[in-house]
Amino acid sequence: MQSDITLAYYAAGAGIIALLFAFATLASILKESMGTPKMKEISEAVQEGAMAYLNRQYKTLIPFTIIVAVLLVVVLPMISPEVEGVPLCVSFLVGAVCSAIAGYIGMNSTTKSNARTAEAARSSGLGKALNVSFRAGAVMGLSVAGLGLLGVSALFIIFKDPVVINSFAFGASAIAFFARVGGGIYTKAADVGADLVGKVEAGIPEDDPRNPATIADNVGDNVGDTAGMGADLFESYAATTIAASIIGNSLYGMKGALFPMVVGAIGIIASIIGTFFVRTGEGGNPQAALNVGLWATNIMTAVGVYFLSVQTFGSTEGFGIFLAVAAGLIVNVAIGALTEYYTANNKPPCRRIAEASKTGPATNVIHGLAVGMESVFLPMLFFACAIYFAFWAVGHIASQHAIFGIAMAAMGMLSTAGIVVAMDSFGPVADNAGGIAEMAELPPEVRQKTDKLDAVGNTTAAIAKGFAIGSAALTALALFQAFADEVAKNATLMSKMGMQGGHFVINLMNPQVLIGLLIGASIPFVVGSSTMRAVGDAAFGMVNEVRRQFREIPGIMEGTGKPDYARCVSIATGAAISKMIFPGLVAVIMPIIVGFGLGALSLAGYLTGLTATGVLMALFLANAGGAWDNAKKWIEEGNLGGKKIDGQPNPVHQAAVIGDTVGDPCKDTSGPAMNPLIKVAGTVSLIIGSVLFH
Amino acid sequence: MQSDITLAYYAAGAGIIALLFAFATLASILKESMGTPKMKEISEAVQEGAMAYLNRQYKTLIPFTIIVAVLLVVVLPMISPEVEGVPLCVSFLVGAVCSAIAGYIGMNSTTKSNARTAEAARSSGLGKALNVSFRAGAVMGLSVAGLGLLGVSALFIIFKDPVVINSFAFGASAIAFFARVGGGIYTKAADVGADLVGKVEAGIPEDDPRNPATIADNVGDNVGDTAGMGADLFESYAATTIAASIIGNSLYGMKGALFPMVVGAIGIIASIIGTFFVRTGEGGNPQAALNVGLWATNIMTAVGVYFLSVQTFGSTEGFGIFLAVAAGLIVNVAIGALTEYYTANNKPPCRRIAEASKTGPATNVIHGLAVGMESVFLPMLFFACAIYFAFWAVGHIASQHAIFGIAMAAMGMLSTAGIVVAMDSFGPVADNAGGIAEMAELPPEVRQKTDKLDAVGNTTAAIAKGFAIGSAALTALALFQAFADEVAKNATLMSKMGMQGGHFVINLMNPQVLIGLLIGASIPFVVGSSTMRAVGDAAFGMVNEVRRQFREIPGIMEGTGKPDYARCVSIATGAAISKMIFPGLVAVIMPIIVGFGLGALSLAGYLTGLTATGVLMALFLANAGGAWDNAKKWIEEGNLGGKKIDGQPNPVHQAAVIGDTVGDPCKDTSGPAMNPLIKVAGTVSLIIGSVLFH
Repeated sequence: MQSDITLAYYAAGAGIIALLFAFATLASILKESMGTPKMKEISEAVQEGAMAYLNRQYKTLIPFTIIVAVLLVVVLPMISPEVEGVPLCVSFLVGAVCSAIAGYIGMNSTTKSNARTAEAARSSGLGKALNVSFRAGAVMGLSVAGLGLLGVSALFIIFKDPVVINSFAFGASAIAFFARVGGGIYTKAADVGADLVGKVEAGIPEDDPRNPATIADNVGDNVGDTAGMGADLFESYAATTIAASIIGNSLYGMKGALFPMVVGAIGIIASIIGTFFVRTGEGGNPQAALNVGLWATNIMTAVGVYFLSVQTFGSTEGFGIFLAVAAGLIVNVAIGALTEYYTANNKPPCRRIAEASKTGPATNVIHGLAVGMESVFLPMLFFACAIYFAFWAVGHIASQHAIFGIAMAAMGMLSTAGIVVAMDSFGPVADNAGGIAEMAELPPEVRQKTDKLDAVGNTTAAIAKGFAIGSAALTALALFQAFADEVAKNATLMSKMGMQGGHFVINLMNPQVLIGLLIGASIPFVVGSSTMRAVGDAAFGMVNEVRRQFREIPGIMEGTGKPDYARCVSIATGAAISKMIFPGLVAVIMPIIVGFGLGALSLAGYLTGLTATGVLMALFLANAGGAWDNAKKWIEEGNLGGKKIDGQPNPVHQAAVIGDTVGDPCKDTSGPAMNPLIKVAGTVSLIIGSVLFH
Repeated sequence: MQSDITLAYYAAGAGIIALLFAFATLASILKESMGTPKMKEISEAVQEGAMAYLNRQYKTLIPFTIIVAVLLVVVLPMISPEVEGVPLCVSFLVGAVCSAIAGYIGMNSTTKSNARTAEAARSSGLGKALNVSFRAGAVMGLSVAGLGLLGVSALFIIFKDPVVINSFAFGASAIAFFARVGGGIYTKAADVGADLVGKVEAGIPEDDPRNPATIADNVGDNVGDTAGMGADLFESYAATTIAASIIGNSLYGMKGALFPMVVGAIGIIASIIGTFFVRTGEGGNPQAALNVGLWATNIMTAVGVYFLSVQTFGSTEGFGIFLAVAAGLIVNVAIGALTEYYTANNKPPCRRIAEASKTGPATNVIHGLAVGMESVFLPMLFFACAIYFAFWAVGHIASQHAIFGIAMAAMGMLSTAGIVVAMDSFGPVADNAGGIAEMAELPPEVRQKTDKLDAVGNTTAAIAKGFAIGSAALTALALFQAFADEVAKNATLMSKMGMQGGHFVINLMNPQVLIGLLIGASIPFVVGSSTMRAVGDAAFGMVNEVRRQFREIPGIMEGTGKPDYARCVSIATGAAISKMIFPGLVAVIMPIIVGFGLGALSLAGYLTGLTATGVLMALFLANAGGAWDNAKKWIEEGNLGGKKIDGQPNPVHQAAVIGDTVGDPCKDTSGPAMNPLIKVAGTVSLIIGSVLFH
């Protein structure tokens, strides 16, 4: 097995192949018909709104990016002359730009595929509609993984030091946090605005063209679920690869630094092949088709990694490392299954919430909170087992290499990001296609087909959410280990702390560690609170605008007056951009304050506390929100009286709608914000780890 | 300064004085008139229900207590022959019994004072009513502190080893957990049942004698707020004194072991004197009177502790220890002020929730969750500062003694428990007095006076809640340090873990620590979920029973048929008892599983994770619940349209009622359950710490 830099070229090559495949897929999608002129018009309005949002989001982030770049190239070397500012700054900028590019490619692909999916459902049927929408998702998934791997390996080829290129992950994570939070606020503000006034007050169906917020709502599906999730997983991918590479480098030298990248390459190639397994006929089950693709990818990755590990590290230690990677793949599947259990509407937790709606909205909300809290235990137990197993798998062979096991479990989980993101991104496309079918007044059977895809999309979205949380947790852990590794190399700091033998001891008996942990543990609550309130405030503005249009635009309800869609899009955009600033700054600045103000030990405590409660809150909020949503849907399917009883609104359904609205910001804004929050803390810490001096 | 065992007799003496004072106060209360026969009848019904509940609760706990006692006296010595089972078992039983006695005394005092307070308001006025109700609270407060101090010091005189008598704290904490959870479920089940059917469906006012759940509701105020809170603080008191004593013993020998007890004695005497400062005239402000009492106690305690520390530890180190105790007293005040800020209805957080009710229940709930999450940050920052300061205050003089600073900060906070519990317990008495005034159809001006007291009671209850959380956090920390101290003495274990020099190093880089931390961090969510759901289920049973009585008992609404109060009391009791078992077992058994299954390092991680998220969840749930409650009350005062607009229910108020109902189990069941949860883990760990062998 070669262990020289050539392997980095292989990894970069795999990244390029993924990008080429993504472009070819996009080109093939663009050849499909967009359907009627009306469909084209709506699709273009959604695309325009989404692009306008992305443009404004990234434009707002330019000053932030410049400030950070200057800090990296000017201030950091002033603090510690050993730091080379230019590579850090270049890596940071490349990371930030790659994150933005991934967002643009994905958004372009999904917004261009929505009308085409609707048209495929209309002219050809379910199989073709799945094909178009899944290919659109695959463009996103393979761009994310491809750009991540290409970026990491190319920078490694240039700078030869995984610690320096961690700045790439920092760039990606800073942008991801803003994209996640901004997208999350946008999507829920538009959704709540459209639902509260349109569906509830005006009594018109979802996606009705008379609703002024309907375009904003469809834009929201893209900026929240596609761009936000894509940025989130791009970040996990980059950060995990780099953290594993740093640890590998410390323990095994060059071959250890390159191994995680090659695992990434195997996962990408397996993901590309896996996409070809996703096929279904007219009466087929799209979920089953997607599962076949996922399992095929997992198995191919596992087999590939087995041979790679054994060749690189020998049959004993290599097998241990393979087991660690396999643990990551298994956690991936387990977390997905648990997420589905707690949120699916044919399972007890969701049913309990629906039943509790019989005594009104308060008991619905109480039971929803209870389900969310309950849902954290088993996933946490799984993480604990995986961490322990991965540590043991490598450590019982070579105890000093044990932490590489944890990093490789994370890498195992992330290696299949290509297909997981593809499965997640297909959901919003199907959802949008349904919206277009409704707005363009296509025959109801078209909507039925897209609804079938959309339902599957909800399940895959739940699985992807579990994946995003799980990968964030393991990424944070890998970053934490890399941070400790970096501090241990800082000789001045280590001797000041009185630690010998190159071991950074983060002793919980030390109050420095403890206070860092307590402060860190409270930060997810602060970010949760500010994002939750942001949605409330933004939705309030939206509600008022929609009400104003219904009141002031003549003939709007009769369909003769045209609603001002653009104004709603603009309001959602403005609110999302302005409200993402505060939590974003908390995420980036807090680790800097703790690190420089209280020192390396407190920062280590901060990372631990932040990760633990961040993951808990992510699971709690995502699962409570998902369960509320599906409890409402289950009632809408006609259970417990359905939507209406004797033509009157069913109070059980009304109670469930309130729970669902409470759950919206939980599952789509505050919950998802936790993932980049814990990762950004890790990447920032890793950068400042080498320059801390107390 | 004497540093021999004589000091323990002084502490025991102070405990006895407190108990004598409590009995004398109770005797003087019993001399007051109970008013009309109707008032007497109602008061006796409440008392009977409360006693029936307590009897059944403690009877249910007898098998549990016996099993644990047997484990302590038989199994523990089998695991490690060095352990003396009998002292452990005796201490445990004394702790459990003392906790029960404190509950009985307090409950007896508050339930016997409710009618007397109403009568005082009727015949004499506000000043006298405050006097009666506050004296009732003082009986509870001084019994809690007196029994705690007497128990600890008497057992110390007998066994001379603070580690052994930790079992006293374990007994107290196990019972406290059940009392808190059971009481919390009871009070909310009865409350929701009474409100949902009585107020909302039947449209009769609160505390109306036609409501079958009204007696149960009044019983609930006592078993939840008085007995539960009393058991909680009894536990904090005992556990903190013992933990500080263990640490003091390790560092300074006998004088260190006794010092915390003498600090407790000073606090108790100061509390007794402080009660005399609580006086107000007819037009006076009861809140101001209570504040005078609290501040007088704090200042007297600080002065007394200053002289004691300097005499015991010399002017340099003694001053440092005094500063640590003072930090505890200050955190006490700060947490109370922050709790009030986040929940008071004249402050922005609560107003925001009220404003959000304008767009319906969903936005009300979203903003309430946001306020709860936001409210955790500053208290956590305060804890962090206090820990750091206390550690520094002692550590900069003698670095190896630094952890004694943290233990003494906790002791400082707890030393004034006597008056804090008195202030808290007076609230339910005033609340009950108002209920009796309503049910006995006293003139409205009586109700106005008791309402004025009740409003003050709500503020003091909020402050006491902050106190309970803060003291639980510091107690857990002190227990954690004592646990580490104990493990460090376990030579076999330490050499197995490869730790030298008697220092137990809990390194976060060790996956054993990390997985314990992750598991521990998820437990508060599990307990939160199960208690939340318990309230939902119990309330459901209550609602059905009240509906049944309204339907089946002829003339109930006209006041000619008598409701079956006893049946409602019995249903609430049964539900509370049966639902407290699961969370109670989780609290007690999980640390045992983690300790024996995964070892001392994982158990240390478990304690840390559990404490961090436990405190966060306690603050989140308590403050969200309090803010929802007061937002509703603010609207009921006539703001944003008040209760009704043009005779129609105001939808803004209806939305706020839903938020308040969601908040009920948060603030009165799940939130308060967190305190004993983290303490019971600490006391259990401390007991098994010496017998762990990996």
